[in-house]
Amino acid sequence: MERTLITDSVTKIDEKVRLEGWVNTIRDHGKITFIDLRDRSGVIQCVGSNLEHVSPESVIEIIGKVAKRPEKLVNSKLKTGSVEIQIESLRIISPAAELPFDMGTEELNLDLPTLLDYRSLTLRHIKQQAIFKVQSVIIDAFRKSLLDKEFLEFQAPSVISAVPEGGAEVFKIKYFDHEAYLSQSPQLYKSLLVGIFERVFSVNQLFRAEPSVTTRHLAEATSLDAEFGFIDSWKDVVDMEEYVVRYIFSEVEKECKDELALFNATLPKISDKIPLLKLREAQEIIFKRTGRDVRTEKDLSPEDEREICKWSLEEKGSELIFISHFPTKSKPFYVFPDPEDPTYGFSVDLLGRGVEWSSGGQRLNDYKDIIDHVREWGLKEEDVELYLQSFKFGVPPLGGFALGAERVTMHILGLKNVREASLFPRDMERVDVRLSRVKEK
Amino acid sequence: MERTLITDSVTKIDEKVRLEGWVNTIRDHGKITFIDLRDRSGVIQCVGSNLEHVSPESVIEIIGKVAKRPEKLVNSKLKTGSVEIQIESLRIISPAAELPFDMGTEELNLDLPTLLDYRSLTLRHIKQQAIFKVQSVIIDAFRKSLLDKEFLEFQAPSVISAVPEGGAEVFKIKYFDHEAYLSQSPQLYKSLLVGIFERVFSVNQLFRAEPSVTTRHLAEATSLDAEFGFIDSWKDVVDMEEYVVRYIFSEVEKECKDELALFNATLPKISDKIPLLKLREAQEIIFKRTGRDVRTEKDLSPEDEREICKWSLEEKGSELIFISHFPTKSKPFYVFPDPEDPTYGFSVDLLGRGVEWSSGGQRLNDYKDIIDHVREWGLKEEDVELYLQSFKFGVPPLGGFALGAERVTMHILGLKNVREASLFPRDMERVDVRLSRVKEK
Repeated sequence: MERTLITDSVTKIDEKVRLEGWVNTIRDHGKITFIDLRDRSGVIQCVGSNLEHVSPESVIEIIGKVAKRPEKLVNSKLKTGSVEIQIESLRIISPAAELPFDMGTEELNLDLPTLLDYRSLTLRHIKQQAIFKVQSVIIDAFRKSLLDKEFLEFQAPSVISAVPEGGAEVFKIKYFDHEAYLSQSPQLYKSLLVGIFERVFSVNQLFRAEPSVTTRHLAEATSLDAEFGFIDSWKDVVDMEEYVVRYIFSEVEKECKDELALFNATLPKISDKIPLLKLREAQEIIFKRTGRDVRTEKDLSPEDEREICKWSLEEKGSELIFISHFPTKSKPFYVFPDPEDPTYGFSVDLLGRGVEWSSGGQRLNDYKDIIDHVREWGLKEEDVELYLQSFKFGVPPLGGFALGAERVTMHILGLKNVREASLFPRDMERVDVRLSRVKEK
Repeated sequence: MERTLITDSVTKIDEKVRLEGWVNTIRDHGKITFIDLRDRSGVIQCVGSNLEHVSPESVIEIIGKVAKRPEKLVNSKLKTGSVEIQIESLRIISPAAELPFDMGTEELNLDLPTLLDYRSLTLRHIKQQAIFKVQSVIIDAFRKSLLDKEFLEFQAPSVISAVPEGGAEVFKIKYFDHEAYLSQSPQLYKSLLVGIFERVFSVNQLFRAEPSVTTRHLAEATSLDAEFGFIDSWKDVVDMEEYVVRYIFSEVEKECKDELALFNATLPKISDKIPLLKLREAQEIIFKRTGRDVRTEKDLSPEDEREICKWSLEEKGSELIFISHFPTKSKPFYVFPDPEDPTYGFSVDLLGRGVEWSSGGQRLNDYKDIIDHVREWGLKEEDVELYLQSFKFGVPPLGGFALGAERVTMHILGLKNVREASLFPRDMERVDVRLSRVKEK
C-alpha cells in the first residue's frame, strides 16, 4: 500500500490510507488513544483503541480510514483539522527512548544551552523546523532573484592562503606543511570574478573567530554574496540590493504563511523606497533625537543602529534603512572613495529592525587606484595577487553586497538569538557539543 | 543611452546601440580595425576606422550601428555572426596591461600550472567560462530535482569538533583554545536531519588533506549531498540517484548547448535503466575480460573502474553503472549490512566514464545496531553524540548519496584534470598561488 502524506489525507475521506511519521503527541483516555502524527507535510489526529504502547517521537506506520470530523469537533488550528484517522493498525518502525523534556507543547520552553545540547531532538519541534523552512526559502529566493538578473552562481573557496587585512578573528588551519586560513568573506573572489562573468553570486560559509559570545555573532555563518559590474554609480548597488530584499520578502510571504503565523511574525514594513542616509546624516538625527553626540564616530554602535531604525520606522514607515558614506579609512582597501569628498566612501550598510543585515558598496576598479590603496592600507601585494591580476587586465565599475542568512532569518521571525537561526551554531564555547566538556576529557 | 547586451543586438538591425564589454580580439588592417567584443551574453564583431589604440581584454564601451552582414560574410560560428557593429565611438572604461600570452585563440593552449597561476585572466577565455556555466547548471539542476521531491535544503557546517573515523586526511583548525577540524563530508549531519525533515540536501564544501597530487582529487571540493527517510529498501536510494542524475543531464542538455559544443562534448549515454552490479559480480566480469583476478579485493581500483565502465558501455549501452555490496567492514560504521549476507553492505557507488562519481547507500537506522557498529568500528560514542541522539529518538529507514560537483563537470565535458573544473582549485601545492613560493618568502 502506497504511503499517503498527512496533508494529502484530507482529500481521501472514507478511504483507507497508510501514513508514516513521528508521534508528535499521545493522549491516553483509557481504552481510546489519540495520537497526533507528524510527517514532513504536517500533523494529523489519529484515534484508536487497545493500541500497543508507543512513546512520543517514535516513528510509526498507521493504517486507517480517513473520517470527516463532526462540525463541532473540527480543529481549526490544524490544516488537517476537518478529519481524523481511525486507526486499524499501528506498527512501530523506530521506537524513541524516553524524552528528557516534553516535546508536545506548542512552545518549546527550553533555555538556549538545552535547546542546543539536544539539537537532534529539539529541531523536531514544529516551531524549530519552521525556522529552517523559512531560511531555505530566503536562500532560494536570494538565488532566484539574481538568476533572473543573469547572475552566475559560483562556489566560493573556504580555505585561503593569506589574510590580507590581518585580524585576530581568523581561524588558522594546518595546511600540509603550510599555514592557511578560513575565509572571513568571499569579497576578493566575487570581485575578481566580475572581471570574468560580470555578475556573480554565491551562498557560502564564512568563519569568524569572534572572541566573545553575543546574541548576533556566529563563528560559522552562511553568507549570501552578490557582486556585479558595469554599474553607473553606487546607487545601482543599492537598487539591486533593495530588489533582492523585496524579492526575498515576497517569496517568504508567499511560501511561509504557516511558519510566519507560528511565530506571529510579519515581514518588515518597507515604504515605496527604502530610506537612504549618509552616516553623518544618521548621526545628526541620532544627536537631535537623543542628545548623544556620535557625530564624529566612524560607525554606528548597536545603540545607534536601534535608534536610526526607530527613526526610519517613525518618519519613513520603513523597518529597513540604508546607511552610506562611512569614512573611507575605516573600511577595507577596495572601497570606492566619493570623488566629492574622498574622506567618505561609497560603502553601504543595510539595517533592519535595529541591526545590520548586510554591508556592501561600490569597489575601486582602476588598477592604479587599487595599488595605491593596497599600499596606503599597509597590505602586501602578494597577499592579494589574484585580485590584483584581475584588475590589471580590465574590470568595469563594480559593486555588491552580502546578506547574512541567519540574521535575515532571525529578524524576519523575531528570534532573540542568532544561534536559533543556525541548525548547528558554532561559537567559542560550542561546536555541536560544549567544548568545555571536550576539554575536560 | 541604455546598454544593449551583445546577443540582443542582432534584433536591432540598423539601430544605434551602446555596448559594453571586453576586447576579445583585435585585428588591425591599416585604417580599418576589427574588434570582437565580449560581454556576459556573447561575442560580436565591431568594425571601425581611425580608432584609438586599445589593448586586448580592456573593458570598453562601443556606440555604433547594427548592420546586417552580406550573406557571404556571415560568420556561422558566432551567434551574432549575421550582423556587425559599425563603430561610431569607442571609450576605454578600464585598460588592460599587456597580456602574458595570447587570449584570443579558440583554444587556450597553456599547461595547467600557467592556467592556474593566471587564474583571474585565464578564466576569461570563453571555454574556461563555459566550464563554470555548465557547473552552475549542474548544481542548480541537483537542487531543482530534489526540491521537486520535497527535499529541504540545509547549510552543512564546515567546522567539526571530532573526526569519528580518524584519518590522516583531515585538516586541523586552531579553534580558540581547542582543536577543531574541517569536515570531510556532511554525512552525519544529513543523516541525523532525516530524523527531523525526512528529506534533505545540501551543496557544501568538503575538505580532504589528500597527501598526493592526482588528476582526480582536490583539497577543497563541492559536494552535492542528499539523504531521505521512509525508504522501502536500498533500491529506493539507487532510483532517487538515477532520477537526479537524469535530471541533471537533461538540464545541461537544454541549457548548455553552446558550452557542450565548445568542448565537442556529449552527455553520457544511459540505457533505459542504469546497470547495477554487486562488487563481486563486477570483479568476476573483470576477471573474465582481462584475466586479472581482483575477486577478493575490497574495492575497485582505478583500472577496475575503467574496465567495468567499458563493459557497461559495450554490453549495456550505458556510460554509467552502479556498483553495490561492498564489504561491510571496509565501509563506515553507518552502512546497512545486507541481512542475506551481512559481510556485504547496502553501499552503492555510481561510476561514470571510468571513474567514481558518487557514493551512497542505505544507512543503519536502529539505535542498537548503530551503537553496536560504533563499538565494533572502534569509535567513541561521544564523537558522534548528535548523530546518536537523533537515532535514539526514532529515525525511519534511510539512505542517500553524494555527488562531486567538480567530477561530474569534468566528466560531462571530458576535462583531463579535476582542477580544470574548480574555479580556484586547492591541493597540497597550491592555494591560489603556489605554496612553495609562499614558503620561500
